Amino acid sequence: MSIARLTDAERAAALGTLPGWNLREDGLAIVRTLKFGDFNEAFGFMTRVAIEADKRDHHPEWFNVYNRVEITLTTHDAEGLSERDVALARFIDGIAPAA
Amino acid sequence: MSIARLTDAERAAALGTLPGWNLREDGLAIVRTLKFGDFNEAFGFMTRVAIEADKRDHHPEWFNVYNRVEITLTTHDAEGLSERDVALARFIDGIAPAA
Repeated sequence: MSIARLTDAERAAALGTLPGWNLREDGLAIVRTLKFGDFNEAFGFMTRVAIEADKRDHHPEWFNVYNRVEITLTTHDAEGLSERDVALARFIDGIAPAA
Repeated sequence: MSIARLTDAERAAALGTLPGWNLREDGLAIVRTLKFGDFNEAFGFMTRVAIEADKRDHHPEWFNVYNRVEITLTTHDAEGLSERDVALARFIDGIAPAA
């Protein structure tokens, strides 16, 4: 079962509600960088996201160095953004530290 | 207290004992990519490395997407490779899945 890719209008509407996220240049993914107090906090956050992502069977692409985590969300089956990315972004925003 | 950067000879000797690792093009880091059965296994491995890294206060730079983990080890205080990278690489090799 393939997952529907958001239309341009749906994508714009979703991004309007996700101020922490930027559209990747190719328009096929959203990206957010988060900073934490130290590695322990950063990896603790990653662990919470990992457990949730595995439950949803929808996983991030992410890079971590020390207290910084760069997250990219995209839906390979949809070849772009889907509602799954928006939902995982909302979960991440809900546990992200205040900017 | 700064950490000594490996000499070229020390670096070559260390790499000879770390066959899974490649020297980054600039010579300042070592890199290994690992594949797992799925995300759960990949993140379980990352968690083991994270706990050990935080104990050592020496952290990897790493990227994960689904079952793949790309690890870069370098020592910022040494502006290159140090014994700390070699030691963490050995720990990682000890818990990495058989190739």
